[in-house]
Amino acid sequence: MLGYAFMGKAHSNAFRKIAYMTWPPPLMPRLALIAGRNDEAVREAAERYGYENWTTDWHDLIADPSIGLFDNGGPNSVHAEPTILAAQAGKHVVCEKPLGRDAEESHRIWREVAAAGVKHMCAFNYRFVPAVRLARELIEAGELGDIRHFRGRYLQDWGDDPSLDTWRFHPDEAGSGALGDLGAHVVDLSRYLVGEIATVSALVKTFLPGREVDDAIEAAVEFENGAVGTIESSRLALGRRNAFQWEINGTKGSLYFDMERLNELQVFKADGDRARGFKTVLVTEANHPFLEHWWPPGHIIGWGDTFVNELHHMLEAIAGKHEVGPHGATFEDGYRAAEVCDAIVRSNASGRREQITYRGL
Amino acid sequence: MLGYAFMGKAHSNAFRKIAYMTWPPPLMPRLALIAGRNDEAVREAAERYGYENWTTDWHDLIADPSIGLFDNGGPNSVHAEPTILAAQAGKHVVCEKPLGRDAEESHRIWREVAAAGVKHMCAFNYRFVPAVRLARELIEAGELGDIRHFRGRYLQDWGDDPSLDTWRFHPDEAGSGALGDLGAHVVDLSRYLVGEIATVSALVKTFLPGREVDDAIEAAVEFENGAVGTIESSRLALGRRNAFQWEINGTKGSLYFDMERLNELQVFKADGDRARGFKTVLVTEANHPFLEHWWPPGHIIGWGDTFVNELHHMLEAIAGKHEVGPHGATFEDGYRAAEVCDAIVRSNASGRREQITYRGL
Amino acid sequence: MLGYAFMGKAHSNAFRKIAYMTWPPPLMPRLALIAGRNDEAVREAAERYGYENWTTDWHDLIADPSIGLFDNGGPNSVHAEPTILAAQAGKHVVCEKPLGRDAEESHRIWREVAAAGVKHMCAFNYRFVPAVRLARELIEAGELGDIRHFRGRYLQDWGDDPSLDTWRFHPDEAGSGALGDLGAHVVDLSRYLVGEIATVSALVKTFLPGREVDDAIEAAVEFENGAVGTIESSRLALGRRNAFQWEINGTKGSLYFDMERLNELQVFKADGDRARGFKTVLVTEANHPFLEHWWPPGHIIGWGDTFVNELHHMLEAIAGKHEVGPHGATFEDGYRAAEVCDAIVRSNASGRREQITYRGL
Amino acid sequence: MLGYAFMGKAHSNAFRKIAYMTWPPPLMPRLALIAGRNDEAVREAAERYGYENWTTDWHDLIADPSIGLFDNGGPNSVHAEPTILAAQAGKHVVCEKPLGRDAEESHRIWREVAAAGVKHMCAFNYRFVPAVRLARELIEAGELGDIRHFRGRYLQDWGDDPSLDTWRFHPDEAGSGALGDLGAHVVDLSRYLVGEIATVSALVKTFLPGREVDDAIEAAVEFENGAVGTIESSRLALGRRNAFQWEINGTKGSLYFDMERLNELQVFKADGDRARGFKTVLVTEANHPFLEHWWPPGHIIGWGDTFVNELHHMLEAIAGKHEVGPHGATFEDGYRAAEVCDAIVRSNASGRREQITYRGL
Repeated sequence: MLGYAFMGKAHSNAFRKIAYMTWPPPLMPRLALIAGRNDEAVREAAERYGYENWTTDWHDLIADPSIGLFDNGGPNSVHAEPTILAAQAGKHVVCEKPLGRDAEESHRIWREVAAAGVKHMCAFNYRFVPAVRLARELIEAGELGDIRHFRGRYLQDWGDDPSLDTWRFHPDEAGSGALGDLGAHVVDLSRYLVGEIATVSALVKTFLPGREVDDAIEAAVEFENGAVGTIESSRLALGRRNAFQWEINGTKGSLYFDMERLNELQVFKADGDRARGFKTVLVTEANHPFLEHWWPPGHIIGWGDTFVNELHHMLEAIAGKHEVGPHGATFEDGYRAAEVCDAIVRSNASGRREQITYRGL
Repeated sequence: MLGYAFMGKAHSNAFRKIAYMTWPPPLMPRLALIAGRNDEAVREAAERYGYENWTTDWHDLIADPSIGLFDNGGPNSVHAEPTILAAQAGKHVVCEKPLGRDAEESHRIWREVAAAGVKHMCAFNYRFVPAVRLARELIEAGELGDIRHFRGRYLQDWGDDPSLDTWRFHPDEAGSGALGDLGAHVVDLSRYLVGEIATVSALVKTFLPGREVDDAIEAAVEFENGAVGTIESSRLALGRRNAFQWEINGTKGSLYFDMERLNELQVFKADGDRARGFKTVLVTEANHPFLEHWWPPGHIIGWGDTFVNELHHMLEAIAGKHEVGPHGATFEDGYRAAEVCDAIVRSNASGRREQITYRGL
Repeated sequence: MLGYAFMGKAHSNAFRKIAYMTWPPPLMPRLALIAGRNDEAVREAAERYGYENWTTDWHDLIADPSIGLFDNGGPNSVHAEPTILAAQAGKHVVCEKPLGRDAEESHRIWREVAAAGVKHMCAFNYRFVPAVRLARELIEAGELGDIRHFRGRYLQDWGDDPSLDTWRFHPDEAGSGALGDLGAHVVDLSRYLVGEIATVSALVKTFLPGREVDDAIEAAVEFENGAVGTIESSRLALGRRNAFQWEINGTKGSLYFDMERLNELQVFKADGDRARGFKTVLVTEANHPFLEHWWPPGHIIGWGDTFVNELHHMLEAIAGKHEVGPHGATFEDGYRAAEVCDAIVRSNASGRREQITYRGL
Repeated sequence: MLGYAFMGKAHSNAFRKIAYMTWPPPLMPRLALIAGRNDEAVREAAERYGYENWTTDWHDLIADPSIGLFDNGGPNSVHAEPTILAAQAGKHVVCEKPLGRDAEESHRIWREVAAAGVKHMCAFNYRFVPAVRLARELIEAGELGDIRHFRGRYLQDWGDDPSLDTWRFHPDEAGSGALGDLGAHVVDLSRYLVGEIATVSALVKTFLPGREVDDAIEAAVEFENGAVGTIESSRLALGRRNAFQWEINGTKGSLYFDMERLNELQVFKADGDRARGFKTVLVTEANHPFLEHWWPPGHIIGWGDTFVNELHHMLEAIAGKHEVGPHGATFEDGYRAAEVCDAIVRSNASGRREQITYRGL
């Protein structure tokens, strides 16, 4: 594990829980080694989460031949090199999103890692929210018909503090602000649920004086399948704490979701029923995705549990039960999201609707 | 009154109710004459709503010197000529939105009517929803601080019927589809609540084969005061019947509204309260806008009642109690909304972010 | 019309609107005469609502042979005598709820009026909320199966003001407090939707020092068909303005309703659908009850409009299109609700579960 | 640990997570021994959750001197003897709710365990939902004023399956049905938030033919402090999966909660603000209860996480940081809830309002 802060905690908790919550686990994770910049903090993290060893030099993770999975939860600036080296050392890799700080870097990570022949997953954990997976299954089953609209916005408000300093505000470490942090999630789910994005007409905005990354982005988007909609993200939407909200309208029905109520999916079907309306589905049933691992109906899971679902999926992929994709985001997915984010930046600068071209390997 | 269909019914009901609901009424309306295309239908409408006379020739409305207020509820294609002639005949005028079928026509209507020196109101009735006026008052009082975001979408789904035919699907009569019908409402409220729109980066989309007007629009927008956001409208958002939803985020707080729950306003204030969240305000209190005319707290009003508030406002303006603006939309407001709508069309065609220039008289 | 205050306004508005909103009206109402205690106020009310005459002596309403329908919107203490005399004078009668101040008085009103052979309706207007009628239709169609539970509560908070004085706080004028004012509505809808109440185990509570009527009631109830549940009302539930909320659970489905969102009905059907949950039905469709008189889908009606539906129903009954019951509450329904309310008072005093016996004529 | 099924899983997960999620943990739990009836199942549970040993004879838990905390997650019929013996062997004890199958058994458990001088907690885990603790803190701080109303109902629907068989349907093992399973939770939270219950007027109902325990209970209740309200529970409320809903109204404000949205608390304060309404508080802030152990604002916790909070509290109590009460339910609380449940049964049989007398040791 690289990183012991927010994502390090979320991933470590997941690895611990997989061992007993997804019984029998596809593979039994051993928490071998954790790396981080601060000596004292990484030592405490190792003790806390039960890692066998700790280090302040992430190269030790690469060098350890007993390690089979490298999980990169560090700042965006340390995604590329360690992840590529780990793959080249034959380790499967998980990397937090955004994959790289831009499309070029993301493509390089994908290219090098794919060449190494290991399994790779970009940790877009919201694909592993039961309601999101259920949405995907409903769409795949044709219950929404053809998709016409996607409206996605990821709104938070913690950015409204001029005194706050974190790597997330430094362009060299983060690459971008609300775009890569939140907007990339919207892009990824739109791709997972609707399809590939063809064009963006976008604005990128920084509100706070002195802030070096964007606070918000706004985009009108077209999908390759003809659907149109909007993608937005902001760290300054006061009152919204983790409001990743999206709506999808198809020719047969619609869906609505809000991450602040992550166990719920709103479902509309145009079935002619006189009692017409959106159903509030509590996605906790035995026949709902991932729920075999959790609790009886009505007993909700938490945000942290999405990582259990996600990393369990990765372990299954490593164990050969299925591929990482299409349900897990591969590094190609990580790269493609970055292409859309880059196009948003370009469109803001050019004032033009930007076409998006996706590169192969 | 010109028109006896949807808007004719809504306006006629309002004129009837003003006479006793807004007691004492600023002026006592006399329903003098109603005009419409179909002889039998207009005669029945006259009888139904209590008009003293009826005609199939709207010129009769102009010619009648006893008529002081001309209310145009006809299709968009008959907004310009009758409204202008009525004004030139010295009558005050109300005209349904959109004012004209494009900015040029709208400007002409405004120009000619303003030159006639009469009172004019473009019937953007949603300004007269109590929750909307309360939102305006909160913003004017500075309770939201500076506005950073506006996200507005007006979603309906009745357009998803290929067999349906109405003047609203004919470009010559309607000018546009979801854009002028629904999008114009979003534009108007965004201007009323946030300020003037500076640029749009937009898509205009028709989904149904053979349909000659747009089904949906998507736009990223910048306001002159620096706020950014999105404006959307669709007649194909299945499950949404009258979902005019908007959210405003400022430096001190946020608001959220959905026309399907038109008596509610969601209010967030960043006041440091540990119990932090959006308040669901039922806008039915005695100290809320327009409520002096209605019922005790908690007893909601209906969509039709917004027209009572609106036309009451117009009668007050005629009686000299206040101007039509800023709370009523003047024909200048109607024209400005049309400029934004035109820019959306231009942006769709050009693939560029379109600057908006507003003309004076 | 007897009474010009809250209910007088609501009923007068309805009679005005019926004339054009429910086109063609079953009968064309003529607003002949309004009576009230205060000379100046009743004169103004007559002018405002368009009554041809006014009087401070309600006997004039009885004496006028041209009056065919007597509508009693006065305080509870003047329900009995004027209503009975009007019926004996051959007039059809509408009387606000509660019918009398207790079961004995209510039975007398019913008995005398029934003997007079006129049409009678007790104005439980909430039966004429479209969502409530839709609930009734769903239950009658068997879509909920057998009913097991009814939980109804009518919560307001205006009573939390020690300085407030109104006839509603005087036992001789009102009979009771939250019981007859709000609890009677819950009882009536429970009877309309579920069936006859067999027993109550109840508490009646006055919180404010010096208040002479109850502030709240709480009851566990059994229905004759075996369903069990609760009935509650309070004027001291802070934050609840008009929260008449009820839930019904049957062997096939459930319903939930809140009068603060009176255009919505929550519907659950146990149909095995994997997307399982309550549907939020916006009861504004053309195939929903009463909606033929109103607006297109999604355009909500207001609280005041329920009286239009109600009095239109009464005019249809007078015109011979149907009986007042079962959809309108007859005076027998008014009496039966009073029996339940009396049993609640008895149970509070006795500390026993009280059986309810309903008398015939 | 005694029991490996639903509660065994929930408690075991919590003990595992405490070790790293509540860092530093007050005591580091060692999962020494798990007992259960089925040999194969308990062995697998031991392996799954990481218990050092397993046994089919719970006496082994008592006999092991290295065990400091005995956690009883077995059926209600095996609450008394093992728990008492464990306490007498000097072990601290946690016992699932309901403590005993009736008040007599519950009092005996409390009495014997208290005499043994160990720490004891009855596992009413819903006290450890952040929103519930926040409610308690708001009430203790006087922000609601004096409490007037409590309306609590715990609604599920899994009981609507005649073919289902579990110990929860056997009177000798469970004691009661919806009463002890769900109603006891409502009673406990009402006591925790409002105060001691003085009387109940109640119904106990079994709907399904052949079912030997109750399906639902309905009660009107009085509290010693004068508040009145209702307590309900049902396993047959179709569409409600885990709907433990309660509302509290005080002289200064109100609260509303629904366990299906366990991260939210609705808060109303009568502070005269013109923007008046219930605030939807997402209880995930750093200054909210328990949240120091979890995630950044807006990132919700799950149902299973309430056990982490609960057992962490117990470990702190053992470590001497605070007592089990008042925030944890002691066995006295478990006994008192049983007295209320017994009174509900008595009231159903007697048809009378039953006074409740609480015994001391």
